[in-house]
Amino acid sequence: METVSVTGLVATTPRHLVTQDGLPITSFRLASSYRKFDREQNKWVDGETNWFTITAFKQLAINVAGSVNKGDRITVTGTLRVRDWDNGERSGTSVEVEATSMGHDLTWGTSVFTRTVLVRDAEPEDELV
Amino acid sequence: METVSVTGLVATTPRHLVTQDGLPITSFRLASSYRKFDREQNKWVDGETNWFTITAFKQLAINVAGSVNKGDRITVTGTLRVRDWDNGERSGTSVEVEATSMGHDLTWGTSVFTRTVLVRDAEPEDELV
Amino acid sequence: METVSVTGLVATTPRHLVTQDGLPITSFRLASSYRKFDREQNKWVDGETNWFTITAFKQLAINVAGSVNKGDRITVTGTLRVRDWDNGERSGTSVEVEATSMGHDLTWGTSVFTRTVLVRDAEPEDELV
Amino acid sequence: METVSVTGLVATTPRHLVTQDGLPITSFRLASSYRKFDREQNKWVDGETNWFTITAFKQLAINVAGSVNKGDRITVTGTLRVRDWDNGERSGTSVEVEATSMGHDLTWGTSVFTRTVLVRDAEPEDELV
Repeated sequence: METVSVTGLVATTPRHLVTQDGLPITSFRLASSYRKFDREQNKWVDGETNWFTITAFKQLAINVAGSVNKGDRITVTGTLRVRDWDNGERSGTSVEVEATSMGHDLTWGTSVFTRTVLVRDAEPEDELV
Repeated sequence: METVSVTGLVATTPRHLVTQDGLPITSFRLASSYRKFDREQNKWVDGETNWFTITAFKQLAINVAGSVNKGDRITVTGTLRVRDWDNGERSGTSVEVEATSMGHDLTWGTSVFTRTVLVRDAEPEDELV
Repeated sequence: METVSVTGLVATTPRHLVTQDGLPITSFRLASSYRKFDREQNKWVDGETNWFTITAFKQLAINVAGSVNKGDRITVTGTLRVRDWDNGERSGTSVEVEATSMGHDLTWGTSVFTRTVLVRDAEPEDELV
Repeated sequence: METVSVTGLVATTPRHLVTQDGLPITSFRLASSYRKFDREQNKWVDGETNWFTITAFKQLAINVAGSVNKGDRITVTGTLRVRDWDNGERSGTSVEVEATSMGHDLTWGTSVFTRTVLVRDAEPEDELV
């Protein structure tokens, strides 16, 4: 199981929903770019962009829905899920990060943080090795 | 060079200073804990705590000084520096994370983010391989 | 720019080639699985599989071509590249890891290592921030 | 809990032992360096070195003891343990990586890999969140 940390720009308005089982989910697309020094041009230029679908669950999903907007700069750490899919008509690869932590990147601004009443989320269903 | 991502509790009041060369620096101690399922006791218990010194520079240092307080929950990604030191009298090992991104962990609350006027920090002095 | 570490099974025979510019490249598909404890069934079961295309360059590419076979267990660290592509007819997402280090995972066996004559690969063309 | 990946030089001869409970353990010190481009000198120079104690358990410990020597180049991924200790007389900080995978870095040579008979190690005692 791979963990990855990504810093980038929230590219879509976060979508929030609650499943029939009562599980809150929030997700959005994140674009991560970097700068590199091109010695031929002797200056800094843009590298390529990595695209991810970020997904949050439970209390994190609720807080993200209330705090994160398209255009924000976010830092997120989570589990990487790379799946090949095929629905008969089309096929592709989905790249998703299931967030275990996420926050506005203070490299780009300041934030006023309000603590949610401290409740511990239910422990995970499965244990992982 | 190792990159590490840490999520934890800000254990000391962040200290902020500006060097003679005009470089803003903010640092604090971060405690990272985790929960594990103990099958003998058949319940979730606390694992051990990792301790880090987190250091931020330039615009990130300024924003962290204005946004982060002791007791906050933070997610940070950066370069790991593990150095053995010896000053003649005493010796030890320092474990520091030089932050490349940092933010309040939205697992624990909500945040109102204010963008700093967009200025690009000077590119780094050295290039790394 | 994201760094990721993956451990898994070499799923295809590594392909090796040298570009017109004289750059050696070796690549293969890697499948990474994990085990998780399902509490309903009260036993360990397989989690889902992540699929990656692993690419190595220069001396690493040459050594991988001479050491790695389909069916081997590998641990690799490198730069993650997630790109959406569209060639007019079809579109998709490619997920690639450009290896900065790679080796047989000793969890699964033993290895006899032979050092290549020590030559330092040319430093990278661009510097990255 | 933090995961870290380190590539470096095995600085001490790996020590191997089996505990009273029958648990094989192998450990050694690993030095990780990097190169950086110094623009004032307009050339590549050595960066600083990170020092880690690497520890392996069970089948990995046995295979590492039989394959890894002082002076080898290794890539390892595992759990980072940063603990402050105090034995009354002296105090310090220990920085250890408990390896989940490890192998000779093929950037530096070739390897002939021999698979151990396929036995699945006992699943871990505790589950982690």
